[in-house]
Amino acid sequence: MNPTKAYAAHSATTPLEPWTLERRNPKPHDVALEILFCGVCHSDLHFARNDWGMSIYPVVPGHEIVGRVTAVGAHVKKFKVGDLAGIGCLVDSCRECDNCKDGLEQYCAEGAVFSYNGMERDGSGVTYGGYSKSIVCHEDFVLKISDKLPLDAVAPLLCAGITTYSPLRHWKVGKGMKVGILGLGGLGHMGVKFAVSMGAEVTMLSHSPSKQADAQRLGAHKFVLTSDEAQAKSVMGYFDFILDTVSAEHDYNFYLGMLRTNGKMVCVGVPPNPVPLHSMSLIFGRKSLGGSLIGGLPETQEMLDYCAEHNIVSDIELIRMDQINEAYERMLKGDVRYRFVIDMSTL
Amino acid sequence: MNPTKAYAAHSATTPLEPWTLERRNPKPHDVALEILFCGVCHSDLHFARNDWGMSIYPVVPGHEIVGRVTAVGAHVKKFKVGDLAGIGCLVDSCRECDNCKDGLEQYCAEGAVFSYNGMERDGSGVTYGGYSKSIVCHEDFVLKISDKLPLDAVAPLLCAGITTYSPLRHWKVGKGMKVGILGLGGLGHMGVKFAVSMGAEVTMLSHSPSKQADAQRLGAHKFVLTSDEAQAKSVMGYFDFILDTVSAEHDYNFYLGMLRTNGKMVCVGVPPNPVPLHSMSLIFGRKSLGGSLIGGLPETQEMLDYCAEHNIVSDIELIRMDQINEAYERMLKGDVRYRFVIDMSTL
Repeated sequence: MNPTKAYAAHSATTPLEPWTLERRNPKPHDVALEILFCGVCHSDLHFARNDWGMSIYPVVPGHEIVGRVTAVGAHVKKFKVGDLAGIGCLVDSCRECDNCKDGLEQYCAEGAVFSYNGMERDGSGVTYGGYSKSIVCHEDFVLKISDKLPLDAVAPLLCAGITTYSPLRHWKVGKGMKVGILGLGGLGHMGVKFAVSMGAEVTMLSHSPSKQADAQRLGAHKFVLTSDEAQAKSVMGYFDFILDTVSAEHDYNFYLGMLRTNGKMVCVGVPPNPVPLHSMSLIFGRKSLGGSLIGGLPETQEMLDYCAEHNIVSDIELIRMDQINEAYERMLKGDVRYRFVIDMSTL
Repeated sequence: MNPTKAYAAHSATTPLEPWTLERRNPKPHDVALEILFCGVCHSDLHFARNDWGMSIYPVVPGHEIVGRVTAVGAHVKKFKVGDLAGIGCLVDSCRECDNCKDGLEQYCAEGAVFSYNGMERDGSGVTYGGYSKSIVCHEDFVLKISDKLPLDAVAPLLCAGITTYSPLRHWKVGKGMKVGILGLGGLGHMGVKFAVSMGAEVTMLSHSPSKQADAQRLGAHKFVLTSDEAQAKSVMGYFDFILDTVSAEHDYNFYLGMLRTNGKMVCVGVPPNPVPLHSMSLIFGRKSLGGSLIGGLPETQEMLDYCAEHNIVSDIELIRMDQINEAYERMLKGDVRYRFVIDMSTL
């Protein structure tokens, strides 16, 4: 075992602080990475503070991990020492159920193993994430990273990127479609970039007027201030597809009203409480409300390759490891455009 | 104008009683029908009693209408005197919007004209439905009815039939698919018949054990008593598609749990209150919740032809016109298997 510097939350109410965890020695199919950058996802904060009641302390968050390969097991073919590589939300799954065979490891029938706060399938304990200097993972769950893009801004693609790319692909967003992206945060800003790159007409739906300039800069063709009645009315019955990235309370029925006949809205955010849904909001216009969780390994690699080809990265603010607690407070206020990334050399 | 015997509700709190309405003389594209049978839909009761707050009295309900052509306008080509014909929930629409052009008149951008309690597009007043001796309608909204099937049992196809056929077709239910039909009433019993005829493996999902024998008789391959924890658990993650025909309060999240990855549930019923929906119920498994409203004219004709070909009709209880108020009371108790149809010769 290898002692590894990390940052951990030891309880729901104490700040993250330096801690040392143990990483296993690479097994024959394992890849060891030196972590160079790690994105900060809102889930990190939820797990650190036990917002979902399932945190196992100490929690070492971080599932937007990029780094460089420092060692490979004897049977590893995909990577060699020195390669750039990434790890997202998943580090293992059963590999035998229909979903795993279909490359949808996130929906593994036995439950995928998440990169932190997950239970290793071999019974060796809890997984620890990317707020650490190194990580060891089976090669099947390690992604290839292009050297064409700035590595720090690539990190958030591993969660914010795939979470938005996957539903846009699955629901076949493309040319000739009118797409609304609801919410301009870490997920929403990637949603805009992807939907624009796929050829759709993209409208940013936001309740903050201050986001308008950014939406345009990100490539959105239109901006609708949803709190303005006239603006909202102008897009009723308008969209073929809405990607709902909002995790705050909001009314699905209102946004379903913005769909045209056969339109689809897909949620990737989890509001704190169930949302009262009128079946009429779906029945009139044969509409659908769907959900989508990150993406499987093959699609995550596809997304990374797509980003390298189309020059797409996240808009980030680079921070030091010791700024993480302050970064969490700023995230809670929505004060980040649009993703914090930790420079792991500062740990 | 032609005085026509009918049954009408004159207020939300008084029983339906005999009334005389006026039908127009057929215009060049109109077809006049002698109404022989009219099905009794739960919406009839909602409109008679102003449950949805939009009734315009007097209300003459009835949108499951079959009869015989008694007169045709000079330009009518589709029908001749003596033909069997049917009229469903719609009697007009703008015919010019994208939805109308796509044969989805039920989603007409200007609002389709419903067969009763609707406003005629020419400003001539309120529409009156099938609880009457005759009706006059533009030929585009009149359906051809085969003489191969018992006419009384065909009537409910015009609403209960198309309401269930359309989503099963739209979401491509067929061989190799596991389909759940939620609720065994007027809609559900048609859903079972159609889904079975389309080749799916069909499970009846019901909370009444008394429905099991009927479900089997209707062709369902399995029956799951949803109030039995073990039985419900046995179908968690099981279905590709669930058709939700229930209008009573129920928990969407529970039934979404019965869908496998990429599964879809589609509502055709309208519960009295909005249903609290957890986005997690959709996100884990990339599931969708949709809605569907009756069907357009081309698909309604397709459904009627399909029924003639596959010998599908509704299970009905034939009543006299003067039994309608008693029938409403029995419907409220769920005491009908599975559709009342009025023999209009009794008026």
